[in-house]
This record gives sequence, C-alpha cells and structure tokens, in this order.
Amino acid sequence: MSVHKTRRIDLAAIKIITSSHYLPKHQVSNDDLSHLMDTSDEWIKTRTGIEHRRISEGENTSDLCTAVAVELLKKSGWSPESIDLIIVATMSPDYYTPATAAIVQGKIKAKQAVAFDLSAACSGFIYSLVVAQSFMGNMNYRRVMIIGGEVLSKVINWHDRTSAVLFGDGAAGVLLENEQDSTSSFLGNHLQTFGDLAASLQAGKTLPLASFPAYSPHNYGAFEMAGRDVYTFATHRVPESIIAAVKKSNLQLNQVDWFIVHQANSRIIKQIAKRLQQPLEKFPMNIAAYGNTSAASVPILLDELIDKKKIERGQILALTGFGGGLTVGTQIIKY
Amino acid sequence: MSVHKTRRIDLAAIKIITSSHYLPKHQVSNDDLSHLMDTSDEWIKTRTGIEHRRISEGENTSDLCTAVAVELLKKSGWSPESIDLIIVATMSPDYYTPATAAIVQGKIKAKQAVAFDLSAACSGFIYSLVVAQSFMGNMNYRRVMIIGGEVLSKVINWHDRTSAVLFGDGAAGVLLENEQDSTSSFLGNHLQTFGDLAASLQAGKTLPLASFPAYSPHNYGAFEMAGRDVYTFATHRVPESIIAAVKKSNLQLNQVDWFIVHQANSRIIKQIAKRLQQPLEKFPMNIAAYGNTSAASVPILLDELIDKKKIERGQILALTGFGGGLTVGTQIIKY
Repeated sequence: MSVHKTRRIDLAAIKIITSSHYLPKHQVSNDDLSHLMDTSDEWIKTRTGIEHRRISEGENTSDLCTAVAVELLKKSGWSPESIDLIIVATMSPDYYTPATAAIVQGKIKAKQAVAFDLSAACSGFIYSLVVAQSFMGNMNYRRVMIIGGEVLSKVINWHDRTSAVLFGDGAAGVLLENEQDSTSSFLGNHLQTFGDLAASLQAGKTLPLASFPAYSPHNYGAFEMAGRDVYTFATHRVPESIIAAVKKSNLQLNQVDWFIVHQANSRIIKQIAKRLQQPLEKFPMNIAAYGNTSAASVPILLDELIDKKKIERGQILALTGFGGGLTVGTQIIKY
Repeated sequence: MSVHKTRRIDLAAIKIITSSHYLPKHQVSNDDLSHLMDTSDEWIKTRTGIEHRRISEGENTSDLCTAVAVELLKKSGWSPESIDLIIVATMSPDYYTPATAAIVQGKIKAKQAVAFDLSAACSGFIYSLVVAQSFMGNMNYRRVMIIGGEVLSKVINWHDRTSAVLFGDGAAGVLLENEQDSTSSFLGNHLQTFGDLAASLQAGKTLPLASFPAYSPHNYGAFEMAGRDVYTFATHRVPESIIAAVKKSNLQLNQVDWFIVHQANSRIIKQIAKRLQQPLEKFPMNIAAYGNTSAASVPILLDELIDKKKIERGQILALTGFGGGLTVGTQIIKY
C-alpha cells in the first residue's frame, strides 16, 4: 500500500478568470441616517469617507451571492457543472445551516462543486483565496468560485451612531482556474489572527441557555466596536501584512501596481499608504458609495477596477483584508 | 521574477498527534423532554437510538472549544505558539464575528496560529480535516488544531418534538502534525455538497430587513428538518462517499478497521453498514449518550475510541460526516 504519495505541483499557476459584483438597490445617505440618530453627513464623511451605503430590502446574503454567481458564469461561459469548489466568505449568512455557499451551489446547479462558508469577517475573502489556493495546489480542484457576501444590515442597531453609519450590504466574487501555462499567478500570502483582540469588534452574538429548558429562538446582538482599538490595529498590522506578503512573493513594495485594501475607513487607508511610503493613487477607494461591506469590499473594488480597465493583465495586485477576529490577510497576485 | 515555484510535497504524511473532547455537565434524558413536548423515551430510543444528551447551561461554543484546546495542549505538550492553524467547524458560533476559532486562539495564546471558522454543519469536521490537509500539503503549516464544537441548544425549539429530541451540545478536536517520517497518514478523501437539498435541514435563519429602517436585533430561527428526506439522503450518499474515499485511498472496504460515522441516528448508521456489507461492530456508536452534536460528533467518538484503546496506531479509519447543506464528506486515515 502506497501511503506516501508525492507529486509535483505548481503552487502559483492560478488565474482570476473573471469577477463580478452585486449591490442591493436601496441607497441610504448620511442624511437619511441623521434622521434616525444623532449624526450628520459632515461628521460621517470627515471621519470615515462614507457618503452612502446600500441596504438590502428583502434580499438575504444568499440572494446577493447567487446574483454574483450567475453573472460570473455568464461572463466566463463556464458550465456550472465544471466548478469544483465554491467558498462564500461571510459573517452574515442566511442560516447557521445550510451554508450560504451550499444555497448558491444549489441555485446555480453547480452539482460537482464542494461548498462551504468561511468565517473570518472582513478578512474572509482573503482567507478564502488562500484556502482556494491550497485546494488548487494539491487536490485536483481546478475551477473555483470565491464570493464575499454580506447583509450586515441584519446585525446593525440603527440607533447606535458609533457603528450603524459604517456598514453596508453587497457581494462580489471571482472565478479562479489552475492554468499551468498562464502568466497569471498567486505569488504569496500572509494571514494573521489576533484572538487576544477578539472583543474589539463583535456582531451577531448568540447566548447559550442560562438554564435548561428555555424557549428558542433567542435574539442576537448588533455590532459593537472599539473604534480606536480597531484603528490602531489596522494602521499597524495591515502595513506589516502587506510587507510580509510582498516579501514572500520576492517583490518590492514599489513593484505593486494596486493595493486593493478593505474599505473600512478612508482615514485608515490613507494611513496605511503613508506607512508603506506608497502613493495614495495606488490605493483606489469606493468607500464613499458603499461603506464597509466586510468580506465583500475587496472583491467589489477589484471588480470595479477590472471593469473600468484600470487593472490590466500582468499587473501586481496586493489584496488585503482586516477586521473582526481580529484578523488580517494579504494575497499578492499577478493578474 | 520567479512566479512559478514548484516544490515536492508529501500529501499524506499527516499524523493525528492527540485528541480530546469536552461535554457540558447537564444531562437531559428523554423523560425530561417528555415533560416539555408530546414524546416518550420509548419513541425517541426506538427511532433514533438516543437516550440522553448534554445541554449547555451558560457555556457558549467557544467555551466548549477552549476546554478542548487546553486539553489538547496538555496531552501533546505542545506550546501554544507552535500551532500554525486553528479551524473550528461549527454551525452555532458565539458570534458572526469574531470567529469561534479566533476566540480560542486568543484564550490559549496561540499567537502564531491563523484562525477561522468553517461552516458545513455536520460535515464540518471532515471538511476542516481536508482544508487542514491542503494547507499542510503546500503551505508550510506544520502543526494544526481542528475542533468541531456546537451549542445547538441555542437554536432548538423545545416545543418541536420532530427536532428537539435529536440534538445535543459538545466539542472535540485533534492536533495534526506534518511528520515526513511518520507511518501515519491521510490517505484519501471525498467531499460532496447537494445544495439542491438545502431546504431539507435548516437552523439559525436570519431575515433581511423587509424595508429600511428597522431595528435590530432580530430573532433567528430554530431547527427545521425534513426527516424522511435527510434519512434517504444519508443512507444513500454516505455509503457512496465512503466507497469513493476508500477507492481514492487505493484500499478495499474490508481493509477499513473502523467506520467513525456522524452520530445522527442509529438507524441511519445500521443502514449504512448494511449497504456497505460491513459488520456493524466496525461502526461504533455513542449516540445514546450524546445525541446528534453536529460537527462535534465524529471527533467526540474518535477521542473516546482512542481513549479506550479500541483504535490502535496503524489501523485504517474512515471518518464520515453528513448533514446540513446538504453535505457529505469522508476522510480515510491511517492512524
């Protein structure tokens, strides 16, 4: 019996075939929020860079993700049956079970695809890219769909001005293919988790029964964030993560064409650019339009830049997420 | 710039170093449940094999998982800082964010470990083993902690006799190490997802806002299960998954020493044994004591068998999960 199989693999020959995003129709402005809580357009805009966000009305996370999946299939021409793996990164799933990815798999009839959700909050899309890479590297998973999707409005307390103004709903994703002769590739990554800071950013809490029996369903908790702690974390750990991933990729920071950073706060992004001593022009932003969409924010921005032909084949991209966990993650890609 | 790095890896040299489980103290009998709903000990025992289940009082999923993690460290002698990756498979996390794995990482001070949760319900532990294998195969993740943990009592409607009698709380896990000279190994796996059957088993539903603004937190939904559909699914798809994984491992069914099957229902397990034409003695069960603990059930049973020295080094194990998604997964291990 051969128990130690060894084979040669190419870790890097992964190509982003196409990308897509979907946003709920209903747009909520800062002024709209100022009618619900003691805040203002000027206050929100100055401190976060956010002007609007989309809020889902009636559409759940799997609906947003399915819209993305349908568009990905359309753009690629792939048959649903050709997909080997679907991962949905989300912190606002429709259900505890089934996984959002399983719902999407069923709706698009991707019968051959293994499907599960990954929970790493705003770093979830990056973590999922790394999981995808590891599956594609050594397990005959050739075609992979990764989607980040959130309906965060489900866990927003619309009377808490410290958190409610920050978040929005949306979904986006990519199709990945293992193409041995491609010039595109995943060059290197860096993931890190800071569980000692877990209490700094929390949402969707469910309490255990205090004593048996008690009647379910229970309530779950809205966002609670220690904003200053998260700001300090992000402005230090994100640059470190980018530097580590660039180094692992045998590159210099200057060789990165685009830093696609999680859209949590424009001030955080400006501070990251400063620490990396890189021009702010290399840090595109769309936070004004959508707010913080957690696991969806990096792929929404990526798809917009690809769609506008700002990102071109052959360019080097640093995709970076950070947030709840606390977590941080960077994936360097030759597009 | 070298973009296509190739290196030789050993896919299989993964050893289960140790295992551990933790169960809440409070035991609830079938008779206890018969006071809450129209059911009886005889009815439950005959149809499910369940006599008792443990129900958490005051301990959340991360508490159960942390108890497992602490015990794993104690048994292995590993320093927390030596762990590279922590995955918690759960469908009943403490929070939407942080991930349960991040909380555990923080509590045991495993500062170097990347941590995230994986959501694939009762197949979650098996799916996580495969994710772990793929990380260990090509990404320099040498020491990995995988825990399946659930406080399902959070999403049980104690007045629904079709679902409330089935589930229990618990957690268990393993430490994995990539040991190139080990005789232990992961031989082959099979994962499959049936999203077209997503509606057959649901829990923890959260609804999107019907219209903005609405006040959170909302309620979430208790278990709902189409029992007959899940029974039919399990008794067909689980044997197929085991056969596929055994074949991928270049083994015959007869060479498997133990079939460690998700403890959902003793009748399902008996039917699986029959379909595989394997003696029921090779299908150990502990469902009488704990009920269906979802992602925790396979590792709880595994740890009990290792502890009782029923499982010995060198034996072939088929670990199989199935459930919400619907999902199924099998990992064949030379222990």
